[in-house]
Amino acid sequence: MNAPTLNASIPVDQIKAEPRPGGRKVYQAGQLFPDIRVPFREVALHPTANEPPVTLYDPSGPYTDPTADIDIARGLPRLRDAWIEARGDVQPVPGREVRPEDNGRVSDAARVPQFPSLPPVRRARAGARPTQLAYARAGIVTPEMEFVAIRENLRREQSAPCVRDGESWGASIPDFVTPEFVRQEVARGRAVIPANINHPELEPMAIGRNFLVKINANIGNSAVTSSVAEEVEKMVWATRWGADTVMDLSTGRNIHNIREWIIRNSPVPIGTVPIYQALEKVGGVAEDLTFDIFADTLIEQAEQGVDYFTIHAGVRLPFIPMTANRVTGIVSRGGSIMAKWCLAHHKENFLYERFDEICEIMAAYDVSFSLGDGLRPGSIADANDEAQFAELRTLGELTKIAWARDCQVMIEGPGHVAMHKIKANMDEQLRHCGEAPFYTLGPLTTDIAPGYDHITSAIGAAMIGWFGTAMLCYVTPKEHLGLPDKQDVKDGVIAYKIAAHAADLAKGHPAARLHDDALSRARFEFRWEDQFNLGLDPETARQYHDETLPKEAHKTAHFCSMCGPKFCSMKISQDIRDAARGEGAAAASEAEAGMREMAEKFREAGGEVAVRV
Amino acid sequence: MNAPTLNASIPVDQIKAEPRPGGRKVYQAGQLFPDIRVPFREVALHPTANEPPVTLYDPSGPYTDPTADIDIARGLPRLRDAWIEARGDVQPVPGREVRPEDNGRVSDAARVPQFPSLPPVRRARAGARPTQLAYARAGIVTPEMEFVAIRENLRREQSAPCVRDGESWGASIPDFVTPEFVRQEVARGRAVIPANINHPELEPMAIGRNFLVKINANIGNSAVTSSVAEEVEKMVWATRWGADTVMDLSTGRNIHNIREWIIRNSPVPIGTVPIYQALEKVGGVAEDLTFDIFADTLIEQAEQGVDYFTIHAGVRLPFIPMTANRVTGIVSRGGSIMAKWCLAHHKENFLYERFDEICEIMAAYDVSFSLGDGLRPGSIADANDEAQFAELRTLGELTKIAWARDCQVMIEGPGHVAMHKIKANMDEQLRHCGEAPFYTLGPLTTDIAPGYDHITSAIGAAMIGWFGTAMLCYVTPKEHLGLPDKQDVKDGVIAYKIAAHAADLAKGHPAARLHDDALSRARFEFRWEDQFNLGLDPETARQYHDETLPKEAHKTAHFCSMCGPKFCSMKISQDIRDAARGEGAAAASEAEAGMREMAEKFREAGGEVAVRV
Repeated sequence: MNAPTLNASIPVDQIKAEPRPGGRKVYQAGQLFPDIRVPFREVALHPTANEPPVTLYDPSGPYTDPTADIDIARGLPRLRDAWIEARGDVQPVPGREVRPEDNGRVSDAARVPQFPSLPPVRRARAGARPTQLAYARAGIVTPEMEFVAIRENLRREQSAPCVRDGESWGASIPDFVTPEFVRQEVARGRAVIPANINHPELEPMAIGRNFLVKINANIGNSAVTSSVAEEVEKMVWATRWGADTVMDLSTGRNIHNIREWIIRNSPVPIGTVPIYQALEKVGGVAEDLTFDIFADTLIEQAEQGVDYFTIHAGVRLPFIPMTANRVTGIVSRGGSIMAKWCLAHHKENFLYERFDEICEIMAAYDVSFSLGDGLRPGSIADANDEAQFAELRTLGELTKIAWARDCQVMIEGPGHVAMHKIKANMDEQLRHCGEAPFYTLGPLTTDIAPGYDHITSAIGAAMIGWFGTAMLCYVTPKEHLGLPDKQDVKDGVIAYKIAAHAADLAKGHPAARLHDDALSRARFEFRWEDQFNLGLDPETARQYHDETLPKEAHKTAHFCSMCGPKFCSMKISQDIRDAARGEGAAAASEAEAGMREMAEKFREAGGEVAVRV
Repeated sequence: MNAPTLNASIPVDQIKAEPRPGGRKVYQAGQLFPDIRVPFREVALHPTANEPPVTLYDPSGPYTDPTADIDIARGLPRLRDAWIEARGDVQPVPGREVRPEDNGRVSDAARVPQFPSLPPVRRARAGARPTQLAYARAGIVTPEMEFVAIRENLRREQSAPCVRDGESWGASIPDFVTPEFVRQEVARGRAVIPANINHPELEPMAIGRNFLVKINANIGNSAVTSSVAEEVEKMVWATRWGADTVMDLSTGRNIHNIREWIIRNSPVPIGTVPIYQALEKVGGVAEDLTFDIFADTLIEQAEQGVDYFTIHAGVRLPFIPMTANRVTGIVSRGGSIMAKWCLAHHKENFLYERFDEICEIMAAYDVSFSLGDGLRPGSIADANDEAQFAELRTLGELTKIAWARDCQVMIEGPGHVAMHKIKANMDEQLRHCGEAPFYTLGPLTTDIAPGYDHITSAIGAAMIGWFGTAMLCYVTPKEHLGLPDKQDVKDGVIAYKIAAHAADLAKGHPAARLHDDALSRARFEFRWEDQFNLGLDPETARQYHDETLPKEAHKTAHFCSMCGPKFCSMKISQDIRDAARGEGAAAASEAEAGMREMAEKFREAGGEVAVRV
């Protein structure tokens, strides 16, 4: 998973609200909790469409709301503060002192500024477990749960009755999502709502097989130390195009301070891989890692508000030799670090042995587990092997332990897998991990296209999303080659929005088809602006169109540049429709009789003129 | 299907041989026919790899052979002349006069030059059917068949024993392809070798479920009349990146003359949609089309050497009302033209009624049928509907008629289809079309990403290729929006090379895995140059790498920019492998005992140094 590096250094005050063209930000209030405001992107259609506006899922937060007053030195509004406090199971704590090693022992000169107004740190009261899972099990519907329910429905109550058409492979997707349904899904561990009590700024979202498929984008500091604004802007940019969560994979200097800036300004859940920072604290020497250093790092990040941790507790000592004959060995950074530690000490992975203690830390802040697949395959040749599935079964054991401590859990998956081996990954995960949400990297369906792995992996991501994966971790064109820039991040996010939506369609998610149908009607009726605005990337669609047909007039022309006026198949088939409609439904059945009249009607309708336009 | 338009006008003498970096052109001679030379791209690996060179499929023709003397005013060597003449079943004919309407009645001023040295025109002798299907049925193994056999094997006799690992859904892919196997596949109609007797310049290739999955790229003249060199260069460019066939979708002026230049210089089969030119000849008025004008156009193009024709004979009158209630009606240009004709005259499609006569023309030149899916779905909402499958069953009837006349046949397929409905398309095609090769456009798996339909469709293309589709027609990022430029053509071709190869892997094609494994070994061993050169686009891969790590030294560095030296998982797992290998195979089983020793060996092996690098 690579981390993007952006180019120019950006002043803190440059990050402002920037609405997305072609749509407007709207909010829907809660019913159980009237103070919640669920954001959507609403696309109004041309009057001739005679259709209601289309409501689209929108993870971009206040940054796309023209009325928002953005100041990243202040951070986003802390909309969950009241909800969290109202539950009465958390307390303010002094919080851990920031130490030099937390920022990679950066020199004073190179240190980025601390976030100005550090919020108070929260922790569970003694004996309490303030997790969404604990609440769900106790039968409590939280504001987070209603927020998610409203968000998943995309205001379909305003749309035409939804189409149920798909193969969900045993998922249980309801026609409409109720807060109670969300509670049930969280209670049985089939969905997670990553929402650290120290990240009240986030807009709650759910990751689960029976919800819309989500995508994650990885960001991280560049080798040349970035400005804090640059790091915040990566997160804003990724969510602008549709990233539902963001993982901060930063390493080296300033990572503690930069992480604080990111979390305070992030409307989406933030994930990390704490072993990276722990390794920094021991000078990069894996053998010197200890549980105490790791646990201290978990607390450090949990107090900042990280919403989920990737933890490679499944890389067990006995599994390591299983990778010896692989073509590409161990390709997970965290996995290889733990494997190195295990071998050096010839001891079982301390993350596995002391998993209980890790659970207690996670539960105290409601940090969700993302159980890492440290032994995932790094090549087609290594897919679905003994090492990979031995680890997956172990992740299943650990899931039950975490659930017993009221911790929310996701399971990470591959990797590089040819198409015929993808479904087995989903089936094994469902079999061993009790339907905990699966969170996969791709998978890449071939190894031969460095520079295009957003495509090799979007193929696998769409398929495994269809089979039941709840969140897809994006891959950018720079995978295997270098650090993605801004364009790479956008390309990766859009490739994965495509994969996620294709999966929702194939699963028969009732909210999915509405978007495709609205866009296709616009396409058929030559409502070019509607077609652009309903697309994942209106700017690019408009630009591509204008390269061939720049004139404004052409945006209303009843033909396009591919065929030109004479050949326009859409125009011709509209004539056909007009003619056929003249027949009414009878036409289809009483073909012979109908056809003669159709032919006449057609001539009357001036079909000849139509093609001569 | 859009047609690309390139930018600058190019002088005829500018098109020269331009080798692809990172590999060299090699040829393998035939055994049955020693004079045939089958081209490949050979990638030599770094000496440390201690592996033989990797042989890759190469449709780019002489244009990537530095020893080739390219002169597009002369055309490519006519390597099949002797083979064709030797069969004694064809004769020179005067050939049809070129008429003003053949070039869209272009003015003398705007007319592009005729190809200088027009070759003699061939036609079947009376009663003869010089088709590869006729020869195959007669038990004759042609040079074309041996050429294809050698080409499909990728010189695997030089490689390690092939891995058979996949799910082929009932295909019958052999370990090695023999000329006799090719003959059998052609004889039963399960593969086609598009090879017009008037296109002796082409390097024979096969399209069939039991061969490597192929891809087609569409080109065509731009509205502003292009120079002939520009049009030829589009074909050269598409094949350079891997297009196995090229369809010329040109319309308007000069199309006859430009087509001649393209065919005379094309190493790959050329396909067309003759109804486009026929419509030009009647001033764009579909109602004025007649069978005679259409048949005359078939002869015109067959005499030039077009290798396959898309013919929309399945758009039957009774099926047209079935499209009336679609979201996007009829989106095939040819399909809508015929539908318009049928409605205007209230008559059955003349391509269907007089299919016999069309077959006789096709057989006389060995032009292969590509039976068009004029009623394919243009949106997710319309997929797999009554109209689409009614037409598909009709294409099955027509296949049997064409086969009875020794004509080679492919069947065209969709279109826009959500993932869960893709397999039904393949199953229905196999059920009704006697395993004639399926040739699909994508399918696009969602409608919501204008500007990214090379990705929405690569997902569907990979899947349907896995299920058994023999050739995938590419889609470029400009689909639905405008005319693709050079970059779009490359992006479309590479996305489809990915889809086709992912399909070969999943089917378990014995030639597929070798490429992935070679690249993954290079990746694991940090043989950066090998990784670039084995990729589909070495230039882009190298450029992406160098953006982050420009120094030459880094191309041999044992780490990459994603993790840096401290974190390099590949480096660490190589240490693990070294340690584990010390244990031999025993390690895996006798884990406990083995591990202690491994730990020691590992320290000796200097693992600590390794991470401190």
